[in-house]
Amino acid sequence: MYKKPFDPLDYNLSEDFLPRDVLHRLLEGLESTEKNGYGDKQNSTNHSVLTPETKTKPVVGIGLDSCVIPLRHGELFLVQSTDFFYPLVDEPYVMGKIACANVLSDIYAMGVTEVDNMLMLLSTSNKMSEKERDTIMPLILQGFKDCAEEAGTSVQGGQTVVNPWLIVGGVATSVCKQNEVIIPENAMIGDVLVLTKPLGTQVAVNAHQWLEKPDRWDRIKSVVTEDHVQKAYQRAMNSMSRLNKIGASLMHKYNAHACTDVTGFGILGHADNLAKHQKSEVSFAIHTLPIIANMALISTTCNGAFGLLRGTSAETSGGLLVVLPHDQAAAFCKDIQAQEGYQAWIIGVVEKGDRSAKIIDKPRIVEVPTQDTEGELW
Amino acid sequence: MYKKPFDPLDYNLSEDFLPRDVLHRLLEGLESTEKNGYGDKQNSTNHSVLTPETKTKPVVGIGLDSCVIPLRHGELFLVQSTDFFYPLVDEPYVMGKIACANVLSDIYAMGVTEVDNMLMLLSTSNKMSEKERDTIMPLILQGFKDCAEEAGTSVQGGQTVVNPWLIVGGVATSVCKQNEVIIPENAMIGDVLVLTKPLGTQVAVNAHQWLEKPDRWDRIKSVVTEDHVQKAYQRAMNSMSRLNKIGASLMHKYNAHACTDVTGFGILGHADNLAKHQKSEVSFAIHTLPIIANMALISTTCNGAFGLLRGTSAETSGGLLVVLPHDQAAAFCKDIQAQEGYQAWIIGVVEKGDRSAKIIDKPRIVEVPTQDTEGELW
Repeated sequence: MYKKPFDPLDYNLSEDFLPRDVLHRLLEGLESTEKNGYGDKQNSTNHSVLTPETKTKPVVGIGLDSCVIPLRHGELFLVQSTDFFYPLVDEPYVMGKIACANVLSDIYAMGVTEVDNMLMLLSTSNKMSEKERDTIMPLILQGFKDCAEEAGTSVQGGQTVVNPWLIVGGVATSVCKQNEVIIPENAMIGDVLVLTKPLGTQVAVNAHQWLEKPDRWDRIKSVVTEDHVQKAYQRAMNSMSRLNKIGASLMHKYNAHACTDVTGFGILGHADNLAKHQKSEVSFAIHTLPIIANMALISTTCNGAFGLLRGTSAETSGGLLVVLPHDQAAAFCKDIQAQEGYQAWIIGVVEKGDRSAKIIDKPRIVEVPTQDTEGELW
Repeated sequence: MYKKPFDPLDYNLSEDFLPRDVLHRLLEGLESTEKNGYGDKQNSTNHSVLTPETKTKPVVGIGLDSCVIPLRHGELFLVQSTDFFYPLVDEPYVMGKIACANVLSDIYAMGVTEVDNMLMLLSTSNKMSEKERDTIMPLILQGFKDCAEEAGTSVQGGQTVVNPWLIVGGVATSVCKQNEVIIPENAMIGDVLVLTKPLGTQVAVNAHQWLEKPDRWDRIKSVVTEDHVQKAYQRAMNSMSRLNKIGASLMHKYNAHACTDVTGFGILGHADNLAKHQKSEVSFAIHTLPIIANMALISTTCNGAFGLLRGTSAETSGGLLVVLPHDQAAAFCKDIQAQEGYQAWIIGVVEKGDRSAKIIDKPRIVEVPTQDTEGELW
């Protein structure tokens, strides 16, 4: 069902009621906490998380997408992830879906497909009027709830506070057997890397904001039209709302050796982090960057400001980056397309190396079309 | 071990670096979301949560302190709670402990004593300098982690963002068997109510802030000394940092019929909510209010501004309000004192009624001394 884009004016709200331009600040925050020692995803080199050693892992930011904790009862494991951030699209319902899909994505990246519960973490903004709040918050809640339902789980609990900025996020929890989890540490030389969603969501969201900021728009209007930007934005919202659940399920079918999801550190940051967790001395070489149409051009025109072609542009609720045996990857991509209607791409190879990731010189840029999928999800 | 109170000046920080006076705004926010339909703790009348009907309960704010969800595997249940808020004491280490104890308290209120994992939810403030952040955040983390360790669990995961206000909170998760959970719905006529921590934390925290605000201090300086306020503040920090774990364990030993923990809605709000969840037609009558020494006087002097004697003053990481058979309550109190070194009080009775709670006219006020416990916890 196509859902008409949320227009604040439909609700007699002022046009600029949601905090904007906060994604970038958020990511700066993540990077600085990184350096600061908490959330040390990049530095962690833990292996074998399904052992009692799990208990001695770093306090926060364990380096994998979800924590995996042995339980007291019957060979079961607790898999959990949490994430929260600020609105980056101006449709509250879609924002709720994206927040939910984004939290679940960390669980899916571990190959886990069954989620037992979600909690929702919300902050309303004290800068909203009562009317804005009563209009927006129920839409965010509904989007989050609908997405959880689509994932086959439900939202039982949460916390809401007030704060200067609106915050949306949640917690996903699965209690599962060992064979439901794919510990992301078994990449082998000769494997290939598959990506299940296109890159460029941050650029699309920003370019869309620039439509209302003449000084910014002036920088890119010679290379893209408003229609390009609107379509890319729709494609980005669509992509960010989409669950990685089918991808997670296919990881089992096609014997995936490792996986992560692509979010705040960009494709290269997450590939590099994943490489650091491998048991074998391997490295990842990315040769292809599938990018939402026209977003590479915008990035180049802005002197590479987003780092999109360097692989450092943040993504929200991005795709799975899956390490697959080379003879399984094509079938994985074909299957995901058959089940989801969306393309996945072989984007790199696993080589002998020092557990790092790189993008090759002059990677192939795949312009991912926007029109074919527009409006299908909502 | 006594820990010297955190003094920002020891770290060359400006004195007023932590957001203050935000607790009240926070609670306003909770109340307004209440009216708004999410977090409908007060209106919920669900029973029998250990059934498949659990899945159809309200989305957020299920009315009980923790959600209890049947799992796919072997008669196990997922018990989870989340909470986050703003700093209310100016020692970051203690703030971390309080945040952790507060999240765990919701689990303990269900009689569950074993917690399998915690996640930490943090926001640094973008109004902090880098130096303030690098000083304060590790102390908060350490306090949270130490408290989790004291509870016999650990912190494996979390999320950190930047935000105008500092936020501290977490998620507690337990996977447990049915007999570990005490569903709080079996209060019977003739039972009594026991409270395991004194009331008055909000008043103590505010009065302590008023030491630096002459116009506020002028209102109460005729009835209390600075020493009174300092001691009450220490007692409040001590109380808020203390785990309700022993209380939870004793609920099993003494056959508790129901329990909740006392937090943002005050003793009366939580008692009333608990009454609404009872299977039998009962009501709770509170005849005694144990209050940190001198805080009742402050509340009265301020024309009852906090609602402390009306039972509506918010508490943070408050005690357990336990419904016990009348012949077990004294033994429960004696046991908790023996194990913890802190007093618990019989504060009310369960009568035939319409599932509500009240405070009787002219309740007995117990002035809970501050000196005997000061400094014991840290």
